Amino acid sequence: MSKITLLIHCPDASGIIASVTSFIYDHKGNIIYIDQYVDVENKIFFMRLESEFAEKTEIGVIKEQFRNKIGERYQMTWQMYTAGAPLKMAIFVSKYDHCLYDILGRYKSGELDVTIPMIISNHEDLKPIAESFDIPFYPVPVLKGKKEEAEARHLELLQKEKIDLIVLARYMQIIPPNLIRAFPNRIINIHHSFLPAFAGAKPYHMAYKRGVKIIGATSHYVTEELDAGPIIEQDISRISHSHSIKDLILKGRDLEKIVLARGIKLHISRKTLVYNNKTIIFI
Amino acid sequence: MSKITLLIHCPDASGIIASVTSFIYDHKGNIIYIDQYVDVENKIFFMRLESEFAEKTEIGVIKEQFRNKIGERYQMTWQMYTAGAPLKMAIFVSKYDHCLYDILGRYKSGELDVTIPMIISNHEDLKPIAESFDIPFYPVPVLKGKKEEAEARHLELLQKEKIDLIVLARYMQIIPPNLIRAFPNRIINIHHSFLPAFAGAKPYHMAYKRGVKIIGATSHYVTEELDAGPIIEQDISRISHSHSIKDLILKGRDLEKIVLARGIKLHISRKTLVYNNKTIIFI
Amino acid sequence: MSKITLLIHCPDASGIIASVTSFIYDHKGNIIYIDQYVDVENKIFFMRLESEFAEKTEIGVIKEQFRNKIGERYQMTWQMYTAGAPLKMAIFVSKYDHCLYDILGRYKSGELDVTIPMIISNHEDLKPIAESFDIPFYPVPVLKGKKEEAEARHLELLQKEKIDLIVLARYMQIIPPNLIRAFPNRIINIHHSFLPAFAGAKPYHMAYKRGVKIIGATSHYVTEELDAGPIIEQDISRISHSHSIKDLILKGRDLEKIVLARGIKLHISRKTLVYNNKTIIFI
Amino acid sequence: MSKITLLIHCPDASGIIASVTSFIYDHKGNIIYIDQYVDVENKIFFMRLESEFAEKTEIGVIKEQFRNKIGERYQMTWQMYTAGAPLKMAIFVSKYDHCLYDILGRYKSGELDVTIPMIISNHEDLKPIAESFDIPFYPVPVLKGKKEEAEARHLELLQKEKIDLIVLARYMQIIPPNLIRAFPNRIINIHHSFLPAFAGAKPYHMAYKRGVKIIGATSHYVTEELDAGPIIEQDISRISHSHSIKDLILKGRDLEKIVLARGIKLHISRKTLVYNNKTIIFI
Repeated sequence: MSKITLLIHCPDASGIIASVTSFIYDHKGNIIYIDQYVDVENKIFFMRLESEFAEKTEIGVIKEQFRNKIGERYQMTWQMYTAGAPLKMAIFVSKYDHCLYDILGRYKSGELDVTIPMIISNHEDLKPIAESFDIPFYPVPVLKGKKEEAEARHLELLQKEKIDLIVLARYMQIIPPNLIRAFPNRIINIHHSFLPAFAGAKPYHMAYKRGVKIIGATSHYVTEELDAGPIIEQDISRISHSHSIKDLILKGRDLEKIVLARGIKLHISRKTLVYNNKTIIFI
Repeated sequence: MSKITLLIHCPDASGIIASVTSFIYDHKGNIIYIDQYVDVENKIFFMRLESEFAEKTEIGVIKEQFRNKIGERYQMTWQMYTAGAPLKMAIFVSKYDHCLYDILGRYKSGELDVTIPMIISNHEDLKPIAESFDIPFYPVPVLKGKKEEAEARHLELLQKEKIDLIVLARYMQIIPPNLIRAFPNRIINIHHSFLPAFAGAKPYHMAYKRGVKIIGATSHYVTEELDAGPIIEQDISRISHSHSIKDLILKGRDLEKIVLARGIKLHISRKTLVYNNKTIIFI
Repeated sequence: MSKITLLIHCPDASGIIASVTSFIYDHKGNIIYIDQYVDVENKIFFMRLESEFAEKTEIGVIKEQFRNKIGERYQMTWQMYTAGAPLKMAIFVSKYDHCLYDILGRYKSGELDVTIPMIISNHEDLKPIAESFDIPFYPVPVLKGKKEEAEARHLELLQKEKIDLIVLARYMQIIPPNLIRAFPNRIINIHHSFLPAFAGAKPYHMAYKRGVKIIGATSHYVTEELDAGPIIEQDISRISHSHSIKDLILKGRDLEKIVLARGIKLHISRKTLVYNNKTIIFI
Repeated sequence: MSKITLLIHCPDASGIIASVTSFIYDHKGNIIYIDQYVDVENKIFFMRLESEFAEKTEIGVIKEQFRNKIGERYQMTWQMYTAGAPLKMAIFVSKYDHCLYDILGRYKSGELDVTIPMIISNHEDLKPIAESFDIPFYPVPVLKGKKEEAEARHLELLQKEKIDLIVLARYMQIIPPNLIRAFPNRIINIHHSFLPAFAGAKPYHMAYKRGVKIIGATSHYVTEELDAGPIIEQDISRISHSHSIKDLILKGRDLEKIVLARGIKLHISRKTLVYNNKTIIFI
């Protein structure tokens, strides 16, 4: 069996589902998953479809025919992924280690279908962790007045290893526009608040000051506006007046780990689609 | 515009989605929602689809053609619902009033697209509530040794008003097999535990005794085995050692109200399908 | 048995708990609940204590002695409540009825230990609900350029009935400063977002636009800064890209009802204490 | 400053709180935390108290005086812990690695105030993980007909290192009575269901079969009756009909990790007290 995952968005029109599913059927494909959504306001159609084909089917041919027969007709933006080499994921960290331990533990447990060719950090602190998990560690200091040097080094490393996805695992630096543009909707950050509340620095301190009864975490794609990119996943935890800022930070660690891990998993299983600074999450 | 909701289950086969969606497209229908699921273990295909047709379309003709062209070919069990008269819902109660207040409040707020031709009770206590909401109230005592009389009266009332759905809003009597068979998958009960834990009587007492840290509620279709029918919805609430049985009962009220209301809403919007004593819940 | 509830806050000092509990013991009281909290940053001590005394105990005498022996010594701000007449609660509404139905259903079920001498509204729409629950309904239009007239009428009604607590059950008007000052920490509002996100008008519209994956509701005491008062309770519900604004509004109704009800219950059971625009919630 | 944590339970009586807090005050202690609970049904008083004393205070003397003046008077069962050497925790594993990775990640991050002198396993599979975290790994096969050999080896290892707490991190063997008796309320297990639902083997399979809409995990102290010991912590996750058993197992991993970690943290911070097969959890 060979399997494809098809992601589509296009102007809404009558007959899209019938056309796509008939196309698959005509090519002897067996649809094992279909989910669709229409943004009624903007009249945009979104679809995710998984299909299995007989072993001998040439996916290249199917792609070509899909482009000609379906894609052009409905003015689709589409990707057809085949189960192939896993995504190459780079992890950026600073000094906090809990998200890094969590990701690497999941990776070693076989929970994440990726390779991790590099961990990049602006500090040396977490190097021993990278080493104990046998992952190459690249220290890239980000110094005042020399940020462009760091950026160039980042791009060089990422391109050399043909990185597909960047995960900011509590990386405490602003990502410069060039790097964001080189990885559109392919940089996932974890922010330690239920955005849009407490964007920016020190969200736990702000949450404590405001006296909220819940704290949260948000994983999102990085865009040029800080903490304002498309949200992939959020979750929360109840707190009370008796929790100090230190307690919030500690309680928040589990939230951050889980919300980031869910975001990564959704991305690598091709279940996210971005439109108008929002995500469609297929389930 | 006229709108249909189509619910299907049948042996899994290749091409079902293409056939159904092409059928809709050929009849000038516009699919506005599709969700499907395959029970891989039992090889059963399930689908829910909503479609809009032009005003003049005769749904009767479409139904006939669907039966002949699609339904028979794939050995489908299917229903095609048209937006018509709302469901007729009967509420059974005993002495607890919180679920009744909740359902009637939602009904008056326009949240539930049903009519409520009757409230049936084995006690007179809640009659004033029925009256203040202008709903006919039928007291039907269920007496030892005379349970068959009550059953006959129930069936008579339900059939006279052509009731579609029965909601047991903390009704403290066992439903006899005849009544269950007359309303298969059309009687919704709320049980005050996260089933299968604490089935049967006094679940809050059992939860207290066991020292659980969460309590729950479960709405399910009633089958002949007590508290063992297909689960529609469940939710939970955190508790601690400091909660007395009385506290659990009070805390549980909100759970019961919400979990029952969600179960009712899923049923009346045709989003539930029962197979093998489990529900498929389309979202 | 006669029972007291004691709420205290004062500068933190050594020996407060020992002094207070010994005082209770010396007066033959039996402590059945004690909870305390120290705001370490501001060095403030908070305590809530429930105690039972023999029937014949004169609480007036105990109060006097507590003031002289304990209160003054530790510069306490304190209230000693005796189980007496229930609080008098006024409900303000506009046109949304779901919170009103919820509160009145709970009230009639015996869940809320209050009397409700009045429902005040700037519209006539919900009058029939008030009538069906036998609660006096006072329409007080809030007209442009004549807001002071409305305010005067509000104060007159509230003072005439000696109202203790005002609940804004989706009341769609800004409360003027005079009314807020007349009821400090005694006006509870429900805001339909997880504050501080989406303060102000149309939070569900903003939540939809931002693409959040959770929505929330917040009950808080009203202060002069809009939606910025001390938070009593918050809760959230998960949503997805597929939910329209209308869906959010509908889903949010249950959140609003529950979060407001919890806020009311905490207040009337004397479990809230406000300090520095934050609440201490004793459990 | 030297700090104590005091845990008490005794028959309920008037004046206990006053006596204890006055005792602390008289010895120049500053109470920084107090929480108490009365089991009204069984008339048992429970208390947890933290207090700071001046550096020079001899805790041994205080203990002696507490025993004579307070403990005997109220027939207390009590422990007075001083901040000293961290607990010695042994981890038992089989082949599942996710809980082990999670615990070791937290340990290395400084989240758990323990030492981990050993990981014991009935298989060799997880030895490399132990090594990468520099923890001694002891393989102890548990063979049919030779279980007593394993038990003896376990006891020998545990006693040699003076282990205080055993954590069963998805250890797939029944713990024999002798070992349980040697570590009463000091063996924490993680069970992958919301107990008492789905006790015993293969809870995810049972959950799938029953069609529940929530799955859970439970951390509890091990007693001789399987999966029936005092519950420390529980949490749940929502699922749907579309989740296969494999999905449940994967989704459950995060629940297991978090619920076990919370159980461990509550135990090592002396916030749990067991009575009548239930836990009191001080917060």
